[in-house]
Amino acid sequence: MSDAKARIAILGASGYTGSELLRLLLRHPRVAIVALTADRKAGQAMADVFPQFAPFDLPKLVTIDELDWSGIDLAFCALPHGTTQQVIKRTFEVAPHIKIVDLSADFRLRDPGAYEQWYGHPHQALELQQEAVYGLVELYRSDIRKARLVANPGCYTTTAILPVVPLIEAGAIEPENIVIDAKSGVTGAGRSAKESLLFTEVSDGMHAYGVGTHRHMGELDQEFSKAAGRSIVPSFTPHLVPMNRGIYATIYVKTAPGVGAAGVHRVLADFYHAEPFVHVLPAGQVPQSRFVKGSNMAFIGVVPDRQPDRVIIISATDNLVKGASGQAVQNMNLVLGYPETFGLEQIALFP
Amino acid sequence: MSDAKARIAILGASGYTGSELLRLLLRHPRVAIVALTADRKAGQAMADVFPQFAPFDLPKLVTIDELDWSGIDLAFCALPHGTTQQVIKRTFEVAPHIKIVDLSADFRLRDPGAYEQWYGHPHQALELQQEAVYGLVELYRSDIRKARLVANPGCYTTTAILPVVPLIEAGAIEPENIVIDAKSGVTGAGRSAKESLLFTEVSDGMHAYGVGTHRHMGELDQEFSKAAGRSIVPSFTPHLVPMNRGIYATIYVKTAPGVGAAGVHRVLADFYHAEPFVHVLPAGQVPQSRFVKGSNMAFIGVVPDRQPDRVIIISATDNLVKGASGQAVQNMNLVLGYPETFGLEQIALFP
Amino acid sequence: MSDAKARIAILGASGYTGSELLRLLLRHPRVAIVALTADRKAGQAMADVFPQFAPFDLPKLVTIDELDWSGIDLAFCALPHGTTQQVIKRTFEVAPHIKIVDLSADFRLRDPGAYEQWYGHPHQALELQQEAVYGLVELYRSDIRKARLVANPGCYTTTAILPVVPLIEAGAIEPENIVIDAKSGVTGAGRSAKESLLFTEVSDGMHAYGVGTHRHMGELDQEFSKAAGRSIVPSFTPHLVPMNRGIYATIYVKTAPGVGAAGVHRVLADFYHAEPFVHVLPAGQVPQSRFVKGSNMAFIGVVPDRQPDRVIIISATDNLVKGASGQAVQNMNLVLGYPETFGLEQIALFP
Amino acid sequence: MSDAKARIAILGASGYTGSELLRLLLRHPRVAIVALTADRKAGQAMADVFPQFAPFDLPKLVTIDELDWSGIDLAFCALPHGTTQQVIKRTFEVAPHIKIVDLSADFRLRDPGAYEQWYGHPHQALELQQEAVYGLVELYRSDIRKARLVANPGCYTTTAILPVVPLIEAGAIEPENIVIDAKSGVTGAGRSAKESLLFTEVSDGMHAYGVGTHRHMGELDQEFSKAAGRSIVPSFTPHLVPMNRGIYATIYVKTAPGVGAAGVHRVLADFYHAEPFVHVLPAGQVPQSRFVKGSNMAFIGVVPDRQPDRVIIISATDNLVKGASGQAVQNMNLVLGYPETFGLEQIALFP
Repeated sequence: MSDAKARIAILGASGYTGSELLRLLLRHPRVAIVALTADRKAGQAMADVFPQFAPFDLPKLVTIDELDWSGIDLAFCALPHGTTQQVIKRTFEVAPHIKIVDLSADFRLRDPGAYEQWYGHPHQALELQQEAVYGLVELYRSDIRKARLVANPGCYTTTAILPVVPLIEAGAIEPENIVIDAKSGVTGAGRSAKESLLFTEVSDGMHAYGVGTHRHMGELDQEFSKAAGRSIVPSFTPHLVPMNRGIYATIYVKTAPGVGAAGVHRVLADFYHAEPFVHVLPAGQVPQSRFVKGSNMAFIGVVPDRQPDRVIIISATDNLVKGASGQAVQNMNLVLGYPETFGLEQIALFP
Repeated sequence: MSDAKARIAILGASGYTGSELLRLLLRHPRVAIVALTADRKAGQAMADVFPQFAPFDLPKLVTIDELDWSGIDLAFCALPHGTTQQVIKRTFEVAPHIKIVDLSADFRLRDPGAYEQWYGHPHQALELQQEAVYGLVELYRSDIRKARLVANPGCYTTTAILPVVPLIEAGAIEPENIVIDAKSGVTGAGRSAKESLLFTEVSDGMHAYGVGTHRHMGELDQEFSKAAGRSIVPSFTPHLVPMNRGIYATIYVKTAPGVGAAGVHRVLADFYHAEPFVHVLPAGQVPQSRFVKGSNMAFIGVVPDRQPDRVIIISATDNLVKGASGQAVQNMNLVLGYPETFGLEQIALFP
Repeated sequence: MSDAKARIAILGASGYTGSELLRLLLRHPRVAIVALTADRKAGQAMADVFPQFAPFDLPKLVTIDELDWSGIDLAFCALPHGTTQQVIKRTFEVAPHIKIVDLSADFRLRDPGAYEQWYGHPHQALELQQEAVYGLVELYRSDIRKARLVANPGCYTTTAILPVVPLIEAGAIEPENIVIDAKSGVTGAGRSAKESLLFTEVSDGMHAYGVGTHRHMGELDQEFSKAAGRSIVPSFTPHLVPMNRGIYATIYVKTAPGVGAAGVHRVLADFYHAEPFVHVLPAGQVPQSRFVKGSNMAFIGVVPDRQPDRVIIISATDNLVKGASGQAVQNMNLVLGYPETFGLEQIALFP
Repeated sequence: MSDAKARIAILGASGYTGSELLRLLLRHPRVAIVALTADRKAGQAMADVFPQFAPFDLPKLVTIDELDWSGIDLAFCALPHGTTQQVIKRTFEVAPHIKIVDLSADFRLRDPGAYEQWYGHPHQALELQQEAVYGLVELYRSDIRKARLVANPGCYTTTAILPVVPLIEAGAIEPENIVIDAKSGVTGAGRSAKESLLFTEVSDGMHAYGVGTHRHMGELDQEFSKAAGRSIVPSFTPHLVPMNRGIYATIYVKTAPGVGAAGVHRVLADFYHAEPFVHVLPAGQVPQSRFVKGSNMAFIGVVPDRQPDRVIIISATDNLVKGASGQAVQNMNLVLGYPETFGLEQIALFP
């Protein structure tokens, strides 16, 4: 692709993952933003929807139907689940040359039965569901390079899978005894107007939600079970915390006999030592969500629990970056053959 | 004591638990605030330290040494641990008639060895350590009524003990498999000037702290072990969340075979059904920390986990009220023979 | 009315001013809550809408049409403007014995033309508009005592009028040179689901809104002009600040020659020295919004500006209490002949 | 300087302006960070002080005395005022080749008397005070290009001067009638441990501070008076708002007869139309502080007040970027002959 810029469309540019994609891509040396869609806000300028882009020259928002696919190399799809599978199916029919990085949940679950169980209806694009590659870069890098359709993982799942799967694969922990207590910033709930997400309802307090029902558990089950070679069902509780960004997962595990915290730390430090976006802290250190805010980094800490062979692992990401749009750009870089860090070199904004 | 008002002193009135005691006691029909101490701010008016009290007529702040104990019936002690045991020892020597509700950690651990292990030095008032009654009202009400010295429990421990101890005592859960993931508002860390507690360091993000070392674990071990009749060591991780008030404990338990979430809920609903300050939500409902903010209530929810016989229990309190000053007033009411709810009828402030 | 309890209805109990009324009235010794309405949530328990009330025994939510007015002595009306005037008109027709404290804007403006200008349509209950008393207690106490319909003032206007009107009346300031820069907590915008009020849209930042168009200016004009005896049009800019509660008004005035900050302070200190809910700070001291949070107090500070005869006045209230439901209870106390402070003795919740 | 990288030192790297400089400079294509000083934390890694830099390879923190000036081309000085003037004086003595961008207040006031008035002691480096160029880029660009010592302006002053000075110079407003009501995020107060800056003291509420005494008024007086050609003393009130970043200035002005809001908008739109970092919004639109968070942009809005010839101007910056470190990098780019936007292309992080 020489020095040319890939021509990029963002479908669903009026949500937070859409604007975050734009924030990152505007600093990417090898892409050109050629289309932004937002069905209900079509006709508006991006600066009307997100004033922080006012200083930039950007295409107007259009509907998906107005897109000219021939001028587009790769599309990010940041649409609601359900409609996504129909949009992508149709897109590949009219424009088979397109690469797609999908940020919805529609193509994350490989098993049609699991999809139906968690989402309540049969999948509408079964052959694409089989084709899609799960875009957890650090685990599926080589598959992603060859993919036409990448299913960008959920924010909770990215944050939990990064430390847990290598440990299961290494036989370092008991997969039957995993408790994931996860906390999310409010951007994780999107930009739609709901009473339960008003400032007055979520500031200065916290609460659990979706206990026993949150759909990201389908992804956890899939990836943990794949790593273990048998069906694994972790405990998982999501919480909403009064912060804008961040997934903070506190993970309680029981190690194989004698492995302990030192062994867990060694497995993770080895596994990630060459990765640009996963940083394993020195043993005993604990991350803060704010140290990854705005960046594509995952920070992982390992601390011994008080009982032998019990270990507490803490994993922190920015749900909009490594948990969504940043990882999506990372996936795009792989798909387009670019260096993986292009557009993602920004440092966390703290405070 | 007829209709007379008990004469109350607050030692350590310049901290948050001190001001919270005052907020509650100023609405109590049967107490008179006769003394407020704050060694470093002695000479100042309470309104200089906490302007919200400006409209009230209150005694000036004095040093402890200036107190005339003969005019005092009961003292709340809201001083740092370590110095507390010396102050209380001396107080009982010069004024044996005094009743004391102590909000520090000094008299919570019954075992001198445990105290030394968690606090790093031998206890300086061993006989008082034996005499003190652990002030978790719902468990020790009758002992508290007769006590001269009440050790008000910690905020994390109150929040975790309320749901867990009745379940251990009922044989409903496996005490060896308890994971407590606890989150605290920032007032839990007090009012001293530390870089790590600046707005800029703790807003818009979160983190775990004291993993494997937090001293409230000594209290949990003591009370869980007492309930189980054998040594119990739960997993416990405290987190700091950008909210002013609230302890939010997400507790993962494994029940005895066949008990499940329904059994857990029944035990707790029965145990607390007549308690004025513990509210067990309908099965499957989850509390929010904000629904107890400013009130003495504990809200408890019970939800089934996805695996049989695994249950998620969520317990929420205001760390400054039921987790500190509110429970201290509740203890005072018992010690002085007042109705337990006096001064504590305020409703949560939401939003 | 001897020791009997007045029978109270709250119309519009599912909003923040409704729940705040309930919080205060549940601690009032002489009222009984006999009805709560919420048209869209009729049939639900108040605890479904506001879980903090779960421990209390309360009437179920009903529609206004279901009310039996014969069992009601006084109603608080916390409904949207526009519909309010129709509801109240009909209520007085079927139940002329009722007293009403209205928290909407419908009866605050005495001049039908001003109402039409600010609200965009002619008033539907002109004779009631003339009858209503403006419920700024400290200025209209004796009229309120005799009123059947009290128009509870807006939060911004209460906060600004308290310091400004006595100064205009005393001739201490130039009414033509008043700049009011006002900041509000987010509860001021109510509980309806709007994108612009999401946590993610209003946390960790601030902005002005309604510049030159905010309807509370109609009230300011009315009261300032009445005090000055001529038409006064102050500068007024409202801002939204990431806090739940609080109106914080920074007011820039030019005094009559030689009056200065000392003169301004003297006028206000004298005017309010016997008032239970207005506290004028010592000269030169500045209030914080958090020192009135949850209380019915207004705190006022006076500081000299750098130019002679320019003074900065700062006024702080809790928009849901003195700015809405607290002042409404204060009005109710006057209307029912109760001591003015009943139900309003709570102290600010800080932190 | 061809393609070589300038060798940069940051003095005072353990504060927020220091870390913010580093965040920006690590993305700058033509600089190399060769030294970081922090006297009290010397010997530590930057990642110990600011963990977000853990993934980067950086020089260890050293004391200023350990610096080898011969290997440094330009130093940013982010030290407290007072000590700064002594450090810089000594630096120029031993290393006259050095360029310095100073972020303290020490060299902002040209008049030694004004300095002494606001800072309470005579200036210790009078000749440097005369030499220093005031680094408000949009006003002093050509002087800055030739400067050896640039005095980076204060955050409040940058935000207010940008809209006000061009209006004074154009004769569009009355300089005697300027009221600046300014609100700041908490990072503006730095990282030192003070009770008044604890999360618990500044969250969920707001307050004015430094009324009539804030030192940034010295800068405002200087620049406004210079523009007007006579002594100007604006009203100015700073407030602390519970947000991490942002200066939000609401400015009330009286225009020259007939100029009005349209005239004010035209002057500002013309003045800034080619500037990369100042964005004048369409007439009538109001900025939010969050739309410049993390970016070097200033957003300015102009709205008519209700009285003829009164106008409300709103100016928003990020106090750590355009109000401090971003503008410092902009100054560095001018001093070193680089394109002005290098290192400053990041887009605001919202939410």
